[in-house]
Amino acid sequence: MEVHSNWMKIALKEAEKAFDGNEVPVGCIIVYENRIIAKAHNQVEMLTDPTAHAEMMALTSAFDALKTKQLKGCSMYVTLEPCSMCAGALVLAKLENLYFGVYDNKAGACGSVLNITNNNHLNHNINVYGGILDAECCSLIKAFFNEKRNNDIPGNLNNFSIN
Amino acid sequence: MEVHSNWMKIALKEAEKAFDGNEVPVGCIIVYENRIIAKAHNQVEMLTDPTAHAEMMALTSAFDALKTKQLKGCSMYVTLEPCSMCAGALVLAKLENLYFGVYDNKAGACGSVLNITNNNHLNHNINVYGGILDAECCSLIKAFFNEKRNNDIPGNLNNFSIN
Repeated sequence: MEVHSNWMKIALKEAEKAFDGNEVPVGCIIVYENRIIAKAHNQVEMLTDPTAHAEMMALTSAFDALKTKQLKGCSMYVTLEPCSMCAGALVLAKLENLYFGVYDNKAGACGSVLNITNNNHLNHNINVYGGILDAECCSLIKAFFNEKRNNDIPGNLNNFSIN
Repeated sequence: MEVHSNWMKIALKEAEKAFDGNEVPVGCIIVYENRIIAKAHNQVEMLTDPTAHAEMMALTSAFDALKTKQLKGCSMYVTLEPCSMCAGALVLAKLENLYFGVYDNKAGACGSVLNITNNNHLNHNINVYGGILDAECCSLIKAFFNEKRNNDIPGNLNNFSIN
């Protein structure tokens, strides 16, 4: 639906900020009552912290914005399928809806490698919709890896894979 | 082995700090070259952030202490089996050894409900040893829930379960 593509375009703008900062280009927003309450992009390299994924940063902003530990009624839009850490965090946050761009068949934990967002052993399930603007989300990540590999930038930039 | 019990006792001291702060009592330390480089305890209530688990806070301190994104040669001691979020973060951090206290049969992601720390689809496996001082770790958590339930403290304190 067009509304979801429009929100994902804003997440893509965040991903572009990561790209410009030499970070794997993943961007994320959180929407509540038709309003953006959090925006973030991957900052792993800048913070020297492999947990500084876009989703984690956006969650922290959202808890602060709503003054709550539970994101009932909130929707996250993120350009790449969340990993185990981020998917686990979304369950703890009791996020309602997750819309992601490209599937990650190497580390995705929302159906690809693991399914943490819909696991009946855990105490919360999330409505998950993958593949929103996947071509655009994928192109940006591929462009990043092509450019970085050509420039031989140090660091392990091979953690992400795209279907 | 006694050395592991001794480190876990220090993690238990951290868990007691959480208890005193009305937080679910989970504590954690990270050891590198026989030296503690990070200590942390659960701060979910204080920070109004369900991702503020002891392990996540300790990881951030450890990256800062070692000025690196990868915790090669590091051992984490934590009083409760890590959840999906924390286990995913430990894999991203490429932690070498994980020693935990009590198994969590409701949300544990290091063998109990899921196994993220040893999943051959992911790009790093961790040496995991559960049950270190489990009686002490378990008693502290049980004492917390008994006291809080009696006092009818608000908030969802039923996320953790003990074997």
